[in-house]
Amino acid sequence: MKKIKLGLLGCGTVGTGVVKLLQQNKKVIEARLGAEFVLKYVADTDQTTDRGVSFEDGVFITDAYRVVDDPDIDIVIEMIGGKTVARDLILRAFENKKHVVTANKALLAEQGAEIFEAADLHGVDIAYEASVGGCMPIIKTMRESLAGNRIQHIIGILNGTSNYILSKITGEGISFEAALARAQENGYAEADPTLDVEGIDAAHKIAILSALAYGTRVDFSDVYIQGISGITPMDIAFAGEFGYRIKLLAISKIKDGSVDIRVHPTMIPFDNLLSNVNGTVNAVTVSADAAGDILLYGHGAGMMPTASAVISDTVDLARNMISGGSSRIPLLAFQPDLIRTLPVTSIDEITTHYYIRFSAVDNPGVLSKIAGVLGAHGISIKQVHQKGRKLNGSVPVVMLTHLAREADIQRAMSEMSSLEVISNEPTLIRIEDQDSED
Amino acid sequence: MKKIKLGLLGCGTVGTGVVKLLQQNKKVIEARLGAEFVLKYVADTDQTTDRGVSFEDGVFITDAYRVVDDPDIDIVIEMIGGKTVARDLILRAFENKKHVVTANKALLAEQGAEIFEAADLHGVDIAYEASVGGCMPIIKTMRESLAGNRIQHIIGILNGTSNYILSKITGEGISFEAALARAQENGYAEADPTLDVEGIDAAHKIAILSALAYGTRVDFSDVYIQGISGITPMDIAFAGEFGYRIKLLAISKIKDGSVDIRVHPTMIPFDNLLSNVNGTVNAVTVSADAAGDILLYGHGAGMMPTASAVISDTVDLARNMISGGSSRIPLLAFQPDLIRTLPVTSIDEITTHYYIRFSAVDNPGVLSKIAGVLGAHGISIKQVHQKGRKLNGSVPVVMLTHLAREADIQRAMSEMSSLEVISNEPTLIRIEDQDSED
Repeated sequence: MKKIKLGLLGCGTVGTGVVKLLQQNKKVIEARLGAEFVLKYVADTDQTTDRGVSFEDGVFITDAYRVVDDPDIDIVIEMIGGKTVARDLILRAFENKKHVVTANKALLAEQGAEIFEAADLHGVDIAYEASVGGCMPIIKTMRESLAGNRIQHIIGILNGTSNYILSKITGEGISFEAALARAQENGYAEADPTLDVEGIDAAHKIAILSALAYGTRVDFSDVYIQGISGITPMDIAFAGEFGYRIKLLAISKIKDGSVDIRVHPTMIPFDNLLSNVNGTVNAVTVSADAAGDILLYGHGAGMMPTASAVISDTVDLARNMISGGSSRIPLLAFQPDLIRTLPVTSIDEITTHYYIRFSAVDNPGVLSKIAGVLGAHGISIKQVHQKGRKLNGSVPVVMLTHLAREADIQRAMSEMSSLEVISNEPTLIRIEDQDSED
Repeated sequence: MKKIKLGLLGCGTVGTGVVKLLQQNKKVIEARLGAEFVLKYVADTDQTTDRGVSFEDGVFITDAYRVVDDPDIDIVIEMIGGKTVARDLILRAFENKKHVVTANKALLAEQGAEIFEAADLHGVDIAYEASVGGCMPIIKTMRESLAGNRIQHIIGILNGTSNYILSKITGEGISFEAALARAQENGYAEADPTLDVEGIDAAHKIAILSALAYGTRVDFSDVYIQGISGITPMDIAFAGEFGYRIKLLAISKIKDGSVDIRVHPTMIPFDNLLSNVNGTVNAVTVSADAAGDILLYGHGAGMMPTASAVISDTVDLARNMISGGSSRIPLLAFQPDLIRTLPVTSIDEITTHYYIRFSAVDNPGVLSKIAGVLGAHGISIKQVHQKGRKLNGSVPVVMLTHLAREADIQRAMSEMSSLEVISNEPTLIRIEDQDSED
């Protein structure tokens, strides 16, 4: 049986999962591939932590450069993460004509141009299914299954940590801080949870998917990002009364040749399947002109689900090698010379429905003042809801708007903040509600 | 730009969709593929129906054999359907070293052994994403994305017509017959709806998926099939009261080396995402040892969604040709010489929860008699529900059982039917409820 030599860089959680999966499912992988994976090296500077896996002599080494420089290695699996060492190693692997599998979304989203260009230059492949949505085959769907379609939009829950936290706040009515602590206790959030809860991780993923969808370069700094740390149980409860759930959505739409990419807490109606996606799982809807809506759902993170995506990619690259083909699919779904740089829609220009909550002094003139401010900015109110007890002399008032322009809303919010009848900064949550386009 | 010559056999609904998609999205397909698809022939005996598409001279012909025999054609797209002419044409295309794309699930499920063997013999590919779940990339997921996994079970809503009908009965409380008439009016059901409503179409699909999942030959006659024509609004209403919806599920499980494959109306709890899949769409959950549960959702039929899957397959085959590889992925996911013939679990041997409804004479001894019959067969009752008005002196009684063996249930049912206190044949519906394994 033909042997394909693998070198693994980084033996943390996912790296260990890759080792385990290669060992546990060796026979079934060979039965599908018709070749044998030989894990020649596993490189990690930490040689002491017990990972629950064993290696033959000489496999477990400290020097990652030895892996990428070994002429015997066919495929390098980069599981180090980050944008420094991982970048160097990947570029070096390319120079040495090795194919690379990675889950490194930060690197691909922020420095993808350099990475993909280098791979093309050296005629090698880089596969990255594990970088977005764990075991959900979203990269493959975008690059292969929708090849006959014009893709119109992508809306997804792409960060399991945030989704777990929002699910906890929703289910138990606890605060963001308490839900975050729970996520940390259960190993679903890092000690420093910024990347996850502030939406940056989801933004990396939607940036990658947007490039694949529209054949455009995406500058990561153009992605609008807002996290979930400002979401309160009160807003989630109000959302529920209007028939909505709050999710951290990654949204990407193309309209009139301009791309709208953003990550923010979003209210979606109960009948949207994404509203029922709870806990650490991910889900994503892709709308395309021929296929219509496709939804994928699965574990977006975790040792074995991510390892599953890594092995799928490794099998893909090995199949290319065995069948004699290479550069079978353009790395970013479109032929490199046809990739454009489409303009990005500024967040100020988006048009959607909004949920606005503010604390108002409980007196008769308040609503008319607020409605006056909104009206002056051309924003019309669809529903008003005033409920609950006075708290320090104020009552919460909630409004849902008809379609409005973000810039108008922001100006109105800022004027409202300065009204004397408003006691706190108002809260604004965007609504994604395809069915009511008014 | 390199040209790939296509020949389309059959220009019905899906065939027309393929022509439209090739025309409408010509540029985006070329931008992804880096080559041009040239539709050299479209063969159909009906040359008069207006399909809303136009062809250049000499493209639209009647003789399908001219297509498969033309040395210039690279890929044949078979959209004729059925098991006679389509089979001959596919085999002839293989002999002429042409790759084939098809959506023909009946042929693949019932005569797949011959078809796949012939393709292997001639060293060509047959791609069939469109045969299961329309534009949902389920075939690709099974053959590629889960290559590192042992697949444990597949549970899906794989027939849009039945799902539409059940959704209508559920939503509007109308009878099966009325819902079927509605489906026919809307073009979602054929004049003869047998294949769809009696579960045969879903059985074809789950047979194909099972082969891919476990690397086993599946004899279609081993699939247990029960359709939805016996489902009443009353059962759907009772199911709802217990927290379940009724769906026509295609189920495939592997346990102790034996494969359990069946299609039947099934009660699933509200919190199962499949319970919220309504209308003509399809959805399928695949459970695998590393990935966990993956769910795919999308249009399972229709002109353009199916055409999307066909073009995806055509692009795949073209990419193999362009990159210089062939036979890249084994046709049935596993290397042909490693495909086994696993035993099939008889329906009598399955163990699940059951819903039983019967009409009983409204007198005090009834329940004890029925419980006695069930108890004698080792079946224990989890919940009993007696509700509603007497109808001709009878009341409907509903029971949910703990885990029970099908053979025991069937014997008990047959004994119950002969009890004098029971006025009609009892209704039996299987429950799929992973969370309560008691």
